[in-house]
This record gives sequence, structure tokens and C-alpha cells, in this order.
Amino acid sequence: MNDGLTRRPIAVTMGDPAGVGPEVAARAWEARRDHALPPFVAIGDAATVGAVWNGPLVRVGSMDEVAATFADALPVWHLEDSGPLTPGAPTAAGAACALHALETGIGLTRNQASAALVTGPVSKHALQGIGYTHPGQTEFIAERCGVTATNAVMMLAGPSLRVVPLTVHIPLAEVPERLTGELIVAKARIVARGLKRDFGIEAPRLAIAGMNPHAGESGRLGDEEIRIIAPAVGQLVAEGVSIDGPLAADALFAPGIRDQYDALLCPYHDQALAPFKALHFHDGVNLTLGLPIVRTSPDHGTAFNIAGSGRADPGPTIAAIAMAAKLAASRARRCVPAA
Amino acid sequence: MNDGLTRRPIAVTMGDPAGVGPEVAARAWEARRDHALPPFVAIGDAATVGAVWNGPLVRVGSMDEVAATFADALPVWHLEDSGPLTPGAPTAAGAACALHALETGIGLTRNQASAALVTGPVSKHALQGIGYTHPGQTEFIAERCGVTATNAVMMLAGPSLRVVPLTVHIPLAEVPERLTGELIVAKARIVARGLKRDFGIEAPRLAIAGMNPHAGESGRLGDEEIRIIAPAVGQLVAEGVSIDGPLAADALFAPGIRDQYDALLCPYHDQALAPFKALHFHDGVNLTLGLPIVRTSPDHGTAFNIAGSGRADPGPTIAAIAMAAKLAASRARRCVPAA
Repeated sequence: MNDGLTRRPIAVTMGDPAGVGPEVAARAWEARRDHALPPFVAIGDAATVGAVWNGPLVRVGSMDEVAATFADALPVWHLEDSGPLTPGAPTAAGAACALHALETGIGLTRNQASAALVTGPVSKHALQGIGYTHPGQTEFIAERCGVTATNAVMMLAGPSLRVVPLTVHIPLAEVPERLTGELIVAKARIVARGLKRDFGIEAPRLAIAGMNPHAGESGRLGDEEIRIIAPAVGQLVAEGVSIDGPLAADALFAPGIRDQYDALLCPYHDQALAPFKALHFHDGVNLTLGLPIVRTSPDHGTAFNIAGSGRADPGPTIAAIAMAAKLAASRARRCVPAA
Repeated sequence: MNDGLTRRPIAVTMGDPAGVGPEVAARAWEARRDHALPPFVAIGDAATVGAVWNGPLVRVGSMDEVAATFADALPVWHLEDSGPLTPGAPTAAGAACALHALETGIGLTRNQASAALVTGPVSKHALQGIGYTHPGQTEFIAERCGVTATNAVMMLAGPSLRVVPLTVHIPLAEVPERLTGELIVAKARIVARGLKRDFGIEAPRLAIAGMNPHAGESGRLGDEEIRIIAPAVGQLVAEGVSIDGPLAADALFAPGIRDQYDALLCPYHDQALAPFKALHFHDGVNLTLGLPIVRTSPDHGTAFNIAGSGRADPGPTIAAIAMAAKLAASRARRCVPAA
């Protein structure tokens, strides 16, 4: 694809300056040729990158500069001096810088200066300290994009598996009441559309896991499959969405079964993420479907305990940037009128 | 090990005659040399094996006969004629035969004629039809061994991972109330002892997953980690059990983390089994700790839909027999007085 849209750089926020975000962004740049990464710009405090990395960096203020400099130096969209910094020790100024980077990254991507947004890890705790009230970055991005949080759907994607937790950061005890037919139908529609638009899969095949062990064993181990999941699946199938289930979660993740589907929908967090991370810890990408922009992120936290030590693995960030480029290209292709 | 105890054959029940049990037992015998399997005897209706398998079989009535014939034919401990049989169509007579095989296998292993018990897949539904009231085979075996069902601990073991679900076949909604400190402590003790006695691991290292996403995030996503799991871990550590946690389940299953432990304890079924089957679907073994006998089973059901078609994979049965032999040898070693 050589059209103008897909040549736009990717916006990479560096997240909390005291976390591993700055160093993994820099080390992803080092790996740009090996992984054929497209030009990207690291957004945040340029000093925090310099503090943990010795490579060449250049401050930029436009996407043309990013494209012109990327081959020889890491382009950094410098926002502000976030003050004296010790890797591993988050500060209020650092949290403010992380939030500013997120706002800037969203803005650049919303106005199409950048092709996609990759968000580095932030500290929820530090952000709450400066008055941030969203549960995570995804809800903030959704709001800035004019999308309700429930319609911003979290997907974890690896080379051989994609999973979607239908409920996310809630106590396990609340899962049975929070898993509704409306939720399943709304999220499954977004997943099916996202696989088509962002992954270029024309006829996506979905499967949904049961909530109870053995998918409830015909009601003997719980009736949510009968009362809630099966009717939602029926409605989706009637709408033309290809979705099987509810299937026993453990059988669904077996090789030979999971490979039959383009995405596995799971009623709750660990049911999706534990098997996903067992298979794709180093090359899994967290992405958000249902947004007007492409957004991915490395699926790890700030890792304050190893920040600045050089031990952070840039693999997830490299995978997140590569996938953002792939998804943006897929969207751009679909927007180009057929010849 | 050439002592008398470990040379005893292994008792393999064939489970429901209409399921895949008879054919996978026969095909495990075919693979006896490739996998260096010890002598074993298939317990059930000899006619059901002959109906789905053309190899040589010999009816036996003692373990000496098993040892003498195993090299050249599949030894079958024939119990009764279970009547006309169509693979895939369970009958009451077949369920009675499966139950009789289970009783016989337990008896042979309890009286030390056989070194270990491997149980083939049964149909819970068919067994209930003839008045069987136990939730599964494990509870029946526990009762026959004089052990309460809670003290018979299910473990799934594969080449690189062992998991223990702390609650098993209950609705997800009941997990928060059923996961108690007493349960965690009792099961963890049995797991630590079992790893020592059956696996020969002198200083086993355990980890326990949180029940809530991110192990509750310091109470923000549920407080069971703080109220229930952490105090149980504290008690176990005080007793000398090496156990870490509660840890976020998804992070726990990541390579590099899971490898640090000899067994991962999980509050509920799918949290343990979904990642386990993602990694070890073909070579995972279900085994029961806390019993006076060694008991393993292939971790699959009767697979009525493919019974008799020759498509059933004997791999899990081969793995279950090999592991039963290994566990029995470990126990026997520990019983031999030091020279």
C-alpha cells in the first residue's frame, strides 16, 4: 500500500515517564529495520528517553519531520519537562505528562495526522492522584472519540489467537449479573465488524465460551448459558453473525478447536486472558475495537520494578506498532474506492 | 526400579462400552513399545473391544497372566456381557459394566494386585440412569478408599505444567462463597504432599491465583484475595508449605512465571483448565491426589460422536498409563527402606 493514508506515521505515547514506556519505545525504534516497522513518533518528555537510552533522538513538531528523520533517529514529540525523574518512582508531574501524551496522541490520530495510536503503559494509581477518574486509558480514548465505554471492545490478539473478554475489570462475583444478552450482542457485533474492517476477514467466525464449567452441563452447573448466552447467540445468528456456542471454555481453547475461529468471546477476564497469555505472552497485542481510530497497546504495565534497568522486553511494543500499522492499512484499503 | 511392587501391572478400566474407552485402551496397547508402557490390563467387556478393534486380545483372570501375555496380546479382564452394542449409543447394561469395571479396578489396586488405576471415560448421564449418585468417578473412588471427596484433589498434569482447580464442578456464581480458607489450606497441603510422594519433588513450590481479575487489584476488584486467600497462604507458609500468591491468574500462566512452580492452584475450574488445555490438550493427564492408591485418567469424555470410527486419539490414555507407572514407581521408591 503506497497511498498517502498508510504512509502516515504512527503515534506512540510513552506512558508514565517513570515506567518502562520510554525505553521500550526507544528499543522498538532500534528494531525498526528487523521488524519492518513503519515510521512512528514517541510522544512525551524527551528528557525521560535520554535518561534511560543512549541512542540518537530528534525532537519533532510535525509528521513530515517524523517521516524525514525516522531512518536515523527516534523522533520524539516533546511535550513538557516532567521534572526530576527516578525510574520506578512515579510522580504527579510524570502522571500529568502521561495524560498530556495520551491527549496529544488521540488528537493527532483523530485528525488523521497519524495513522494509528499505540499507547504506552500508565500508572492508574498515579493518574488517580492527579484527578483522573477513568478506570483505564481505553475509557478515556473512547470518550474523546465520542464512543460509550461499553462500545469500546478490548481484544487481545496474537499470531494464532484472538480473544475478547465480555466483562473486564469487575469482581468475579459480579460477572453473573453483569453478563447480559444486550452486552453479548453489542460486543459480538463490534467484534464481527472489527474483524472485517481492521483485519480484512470478510466472513469472520466467532465462538463464545460458557460462563460456567462445561458450559453449564445442560443447566446442571448453572443456567446462564440457557437463560442468557444461547438466546443472544440465536439473535446474532439471525442477524447474520457467524457465532458458535456457548462452548465449554477449556475445550474451546484446545488446539484444533480454537483454530476454527477468528475470535473467542469469553464471559469474563481471566477465562480469556489466562489461556491467551499462556500462549502469547511475548507477542500478544491489546487493541480496541469499535473506535473511529486504530488503537493498540503492548499488553503489560509500567513495570516500575525493572524500569531503567534495561531488562524490559520491547517485543510487545514492537508487536503493538506492527499490528497498528497492519490494522490501519486494512482500514485504508477499505476506504479506497475500487478501481 | 525392578522391585516387585513396580512390576505389578496397571489396571485400566474401559469406561462406557459405547464410548471411545475400549478402542483407546486397545490402541494404547499397540503403542506399548514406542512409549515403553508397563504391562496393563483392560477391564470391562471383552466383546466391546473386539467389536471396534482387530488386534489380538486374551482374556485373563490374574495379574500373573497379564504379565505373561502382555507382550503379544492385549490382556482383558472380562467382567460380563454388556449386551448388544452400537458405538455411540449408551445403554443401561453398558453403564452397569462401566461401574463394575470401576469397582473391579479399585479393588485390584486397593489390594495391591495392580500398581495403579487408570479410569476410562464414563457417561455421567448413563450412570445416573442406573442409580449412580456421585458427581463423577473421583468421588466414587474416594469413597471406596475411605477418603472424603474434598480430600481427593484433582490435578491436571502435563509435561510442563500442573494445575489444581480448588473448586471444580459448581456454577461460577457459587465460587465466591465456596472458596474458603479451610478449603485452600486442606487442598494445598494435599498437593504439597502429593508432589513429594508421587512426583518425587522434595521441596515443592506452589503458587495460587487470585479469584478476581488482577488478583483483586488491592481490593479494588473484589476482596476475596485479602479476606480469604492471603490469610490461607499465610497459614500454609507458617506450616512450611512453599506457596506464593495470590497472583494475577493471567500473569501466573505466562511462560517464565508458571515455570517457577511445581503446581498452580486456581480458585475455579476454567481458570485452571482453559490455559492448561491450551498448552496440553493431547498430553495432559487428570490425576487424583490424596488417595491411598495412584489414580490417573485421560482428560477427555466418552466422545460418543466419534466412538467406533477409529478417530479417537489414544495419546491421552497412553499419557495416563505412563504417568500412572511413574507415580507408582515414585511411591514404591519412597516405601523401600533406605539401604
